[in-house]
Amino acid sequence: MKKKSKAQIEIEQLRKNNFSTKRATVKNLEKILYKSFKVLDYGFIRVVDYMGDDSSIVQAARVSYGKGTKKLNQDKSLINYLISHRHSTPFEMNEIKFHVKLPIFVARQWIRHRTANVNEYSARYSILDKEFYIPKHKDLKPQSKSNNQGRSGKLSLDEAENYSKIIKENSRIGFENYSKLLNENEEGEKIENSREGLARELSRMTLPLNAYTQWYWKIDLHNLMHFLSLRFDPHAQFEIRVYAEIMMDILKKWVPLTHNAFVTNRLNALTISSDGIKYLKSLINGKGPTPKGISKRELDALKKIFNC
Amino acid sequence: MKKKSKAQIEIEQLRKNNFSTKRATVKNLEKILYKSFKVLDYGFIRVVDYMGDDSSIVQAARVSYGKGTKKLNQDKSLINYLISHRHSTPFEMNEIKFHVKLPIFVARQWIRHRTANVNEYSARYSILDKEFYIPKHKDLKPQSKSNNQGRSGKLSLDEAENYSKIIKENSRIGFENYSKLLNENEEGEKIENSREGLARELSRMTLPLNAYTQWYWKIDLHNLMHFLSLRFDPHAQFEIRVYAEIMMDILKKWVPLTHNAFVTNRLNALTISSDGIKYLKSLINGKGPTPKGISKRELDALKKIFNC
Amino acid sequence: MKKKSKAQIEIEQLRKNNFSTKRATVKNLEKILYKSFKVLDYGFIRVVDYMGDDSSIVQAARVSYGKGTKKLNQDKSLINYLISHRHSTPFEMNEIKFHVKLPIFVARQWIRHRTANVNEYSARYSILDKEFYIPKHKDLKPQSKSNNQGRSGKLSLDEAENYSKIIKENSRIGFENYSKLLNENEEGEKIENSREGLARELSRMTLPLNAYTQWYWKIDLHNLMHFLSLRFDPHAQFEIRVYAEIMMDILKKWVPLTHNAFVTNRLNALTISSDGIKYLKSLINGKGPTPKGISKRELDALKKIFNC
Amino acid sequence: MKKKSKAQIEIEQLRKNNFSTKRATVKNLEKILYKSFKVLDYGFIRVVDYMGDDSSIVQAARVSYGKGTKKLNQDKSLINYLISHRHSTPFEMNEIKFHVKLPIFVARQWIRHRTANVNEYSARYSILDKEFYIPKHKDLKPQSKSNNQGRSGKLSLDEAENYSKIIKENSRIGFENYSKLLNENEEGEKIENSREGLARELSRMTLPLNAYTQWYWKIDLHNLMHFLSLRFDPHAQFEIRVYAEIMMDILKKWVPLTHNAFVTNRLNALTISSDGIKYLKSLINGKGPTPKGISKRELDALKKIFNC
Repeated sequence: MKKKSKAQIEIEQLRKNNFSTKRATVKNLEKILYKSFKVLDYGFIRVVDYMGDDSSIVQAARVSYGKGTKKLNQDKSLINYLISHRHSTPFEMNEIKFHVKLPIFVARQWIRHRTANVNEYSARYSILDKEFYIPKHKDLKPQSKSNNQGRSGKLSLDEAENYSKIIKENSRIGFENYSKLLNENEEGEKIENSREGLARELSRMTLPLNAYTQWYWKIDLHNLMHFLSLRFDPHAQFEIRVYAEIMMDILKKWVPLTHNAFVTNRLNALTISSDGIKYLKSLINGKGPTPKGISKRELDALKKIFNC
Repeated sequence: MKKKSKAQIEIEQLRKNNFSTKRATVKNLEKILYKSFKVLDYGFIRVVDYMGDDSSIVQAARVSYGKGTKKLNQDKSLINYLISHRHSTPFEMNEIKFHVKLPIFVARQWIRHRTANVNEYSARYSILDKEFYIPKHKDLKPQSKSNNQGRSGKLSLDEAENYSKIIKENSRIGFENYSKLLNENEEGEKIENSREGLARELSRMTLPLNAYTQWYWKIDLHNLMHFLSLRFDPHAQFEIRVYAEIMMDILKKWVPLTHNAFVTNRLNALTISSDGIKYLKSLINGKGPTPKGISKRELDALKKIFNC
Repeated sequence: MKKKSKAQIEIEQLRKNNFSTKRATVKNLEKILYKSFKVLDYGFIRVVDYMGDDSSIVQAARVSYGKGTKKLNQDKSLINYLISHRHSTPFEMNEIKFHVKLPIFVARQWIRHRTANVNEYSARYSILDKEFYIPKHKDLKPQSKSNNQGRSGKLSLDEAENYSKIIKENSRIGFENYSKLLNENEEGEKIENSREGLARELSRMTLPLNAYTQWYWKIDLHNLMHFLSLRFDPHAQFEIRVYAEIMMDILKKWVPLTHNAFVTNRLNALTISSDGIKYLKSLINGKGPTPKGISKRELDALKKIFNC
Repeated sequence: MKKKSKAQIEIEQLRKNNFSTKRATVKNLEKILYKSFKVLDYGFIRVVDYMGDDSSIVQAARVSYGKGTKKLNQDKSLINYLISHRHSTPFEMNEIKFHVKLPIFVARQWIRHRTANVNEYSARYSILDKEFYIPKHKDLKPQSKSNNQGRSGKLSLDEAENYSKIIKENSRIGFENYSKLLNENEEGEKIENSREGLARELSRMTLPLNAYTQWYWKIDLHNLMHFLSLRFDPHAQFEIRVYAEIMMDILKKWVPLTHNAFVTNRLNALTISSDGIKYLKSLINGKGPTPKGISKRELDALKKIFNC
């Protein structure tokens, strides 16, 4: 509690900043700069810095001396063209920096995106907080029957309550053991004077994967969209998707034209294989039976999407 | 046990491979190809593939049609020159691929090296083994007084035994809870027919950070040396350094000239700041008192190294 | 001439290599290893080394101890799945190394692919050959009316001959000036004893962009496919596409299952925006007029592809 | 002339920007934002955007909620520590974006630094200006006798004048041919109505390597320092070093603490091999003759630096 309020005070101080700059500046993003958006039970995500706006992309694409922009319509059209033709370099010219608090098992998925910069809170150097992700009952689901790497369906309330209790108790024990090994309580005091305590880099080993960590994470706009195309996806694990959802809102405030082009031409777009094209073609031209070659997986997907 | 022997059989089959190739081939590395080197209690590291040898570096540096190499002495001298002048691109032309089993907290340090390729065993898709890293008594040490992110000194036998017991018990509980949540025992059988069980991507949350994971990890020779310069270092955490030690042996078998140049000009080299240079200069030329400016940290280091 | 035959001899020596290896080996690729494939007038591309085959991808995706592969059919299906779902990491586990000779203006496009390793022949260190790309008459075309960055249509024979002559003469003069500045003829002899000559790093400035350079270029399979998806494309400049065409043949020899999945699911696939999906949906379901929102560019493309 | 003044007007408009921001802002860098610094004869470099300041590095290293900074002295000490221990990630948290105009042969060296983002002016899409780098007489030097890839010494005035004339004439002819092929004069008018003209992507082939190109180039602070450690170096080619010199001034304005730590601990630091350490040790301790093993190259360097 004391710690959090200290964080709160520091954030509030930063939010009072008021500097004069010649740089491209985005009013809607400034409004939420440094602000902490709650995710899951103890997690958060906040924008700590950014560079560029929609017109910076246009400016870079044109290698121009000035703003590079003419009319809103032309910018919009150019950005749409760049996104739909996968011209990625102009989007690499914008950057955004986040401060994120997240469970370790989510952090382990997240870090697989290598084209980003990371500074993580070090448990060799510092002691982690007593904070663990405990899923809500509604998010505790059985293994999916169709998707080998996901969950789906519903548990009985009893079962969900039981699992919730197990996870809570497991977290409690893990942290208790962490403290014992460190020989240090939450107030930073020695527990037993007669013991030395174990080094932090070893004590952390008893913490379970739902313990929270935090990091600074910086990424360019092109790679952010790549991250979102994977993590905002319905197949992404729920616990990372909730972070991606907030990042989508932030993207919209930051670069509205790019956000719109991204949603239309990437997120909600569909890639059809050459077999799928043949199938659709025969369908459209009323040429009769299903062409061979198309996989069952794609056929089912096309039937569902095109309602045919 | 059953599982391990299956792995053993698969490895032995691969080790019987005998193909004919025109590619650069390293006899000493072929001898240990696929072989599993034990690390810590349940970990291992093994070379799964490689590309290039010492002369490939020379060949690339010279952009040559043929082997690019003339005499051993010339190759050696060129490789020394390239390493000591930090010409990194010719070393990027060689690759090595490892299969590694390692505790999760080690994996989290390791993955920070982004210029490598990784495929990790997915705990969303598969169930992890009941294997946890339990440090030996001699490796359980208190927090270092001088190094905020390390361990040093010695614990009493009593304390070490106590901590070892805590870590073991914590691991046991974590895995027991994991099984309960999955509703699946180690033989892959349902524990209670009346329960659905929790999805794998959630159940894994109760596993502690000393659980083992495994991955395929591929890296080029330049970045491998960068990894080793950080992880073979005495300041690296013991549990990652033991992997680096075996990789140093492998490096020596694979590219002996490069290994030698790397040890002399990087691993055992010293970088002295401009303040340090002034200090040493005045020392060598007998010009009296310590020049100002040099930091205490560097001064102490130089005194220790040069015994002055 | 003398120089080329020296290169030829060196290549032939390497092609006689016959080593024993336990590594994954691809017979069809071994057959052409080191062999030089002619591109344009003086260019070439040749495979100098490689790592992995189709089953290495499966092995990495499964993080397996052994070959990771069961039946050809399962491998094929997994590779198709990985490609169509853009799971890129298993393809990063294979590497290929090329030696390429190419005009400088092509090299400048090529190098924009940053996730590759390069060692280029240095014109600060060495003297470039008297070789310049002179397009064939049929490849000399006017600026495209529809594509701002391409060529299309046809020139009269007179005009083509005239332009060819200009390019040839420009190359001749550029090289003549290069030699004058170096004060060195093609045999490496001083031209005028009374002159010092200008440093190589400056003399090269008179060479035109159609001069040839060469490099070693190494890339992983995932990034190679990304390169090919851009450079094998009909919109790529002809002079780089001809290199990509040969690389497509090499890809097929090296990893036939991956090649097939790549052609079906990437090269010949189509990405349709959410607006395009709505349009096709209304078309398929006979719901009448064109939905709003779809861009003219996409509408034209869909009409052409689906012949509607 | 007309074109330049248009650029000038656009730059001046941007320099009048005055936005309010909460982001870290650097007054000394704002003063020169968008301003064009002349390099060589037609080149320039200007800062177009930036992200972060010295305290952003501290903030990231500490993964802090607020400014992360306490006292100037502590920040300075931490930054020194980070630089001298090669902790690179906190410096990756700052970004800077440049607009650069540079000769093509310089651009070809520059682009070898892959960890940067680039948008280059496309000669497939647009027509290049009639601007070529003509070295000053004092910069025209013979090939270095000691350094295979550099220049050193002095040419007679006659020889320098002669070479300068050759380079000028070569540039004139290259551009004349470029215009002929395009069938377009500098005013963008058709030269001969009876001719179609050649596509831009082909016409550019007659331009020599001293023609100017331009690009937007964005890089993080860690990689900028890596670039500068190579290109500000006395062994770097003069024509790229002059750009690095201006970037050093910009670095000082932007992040003065980092600049200072970089100069002391990297730029002016010395790395001594283990053989060199032995040599210095015996020297300091008056233990007589030179230890074996040290290379002549390093021995000469140490003797020169330590004046012994």
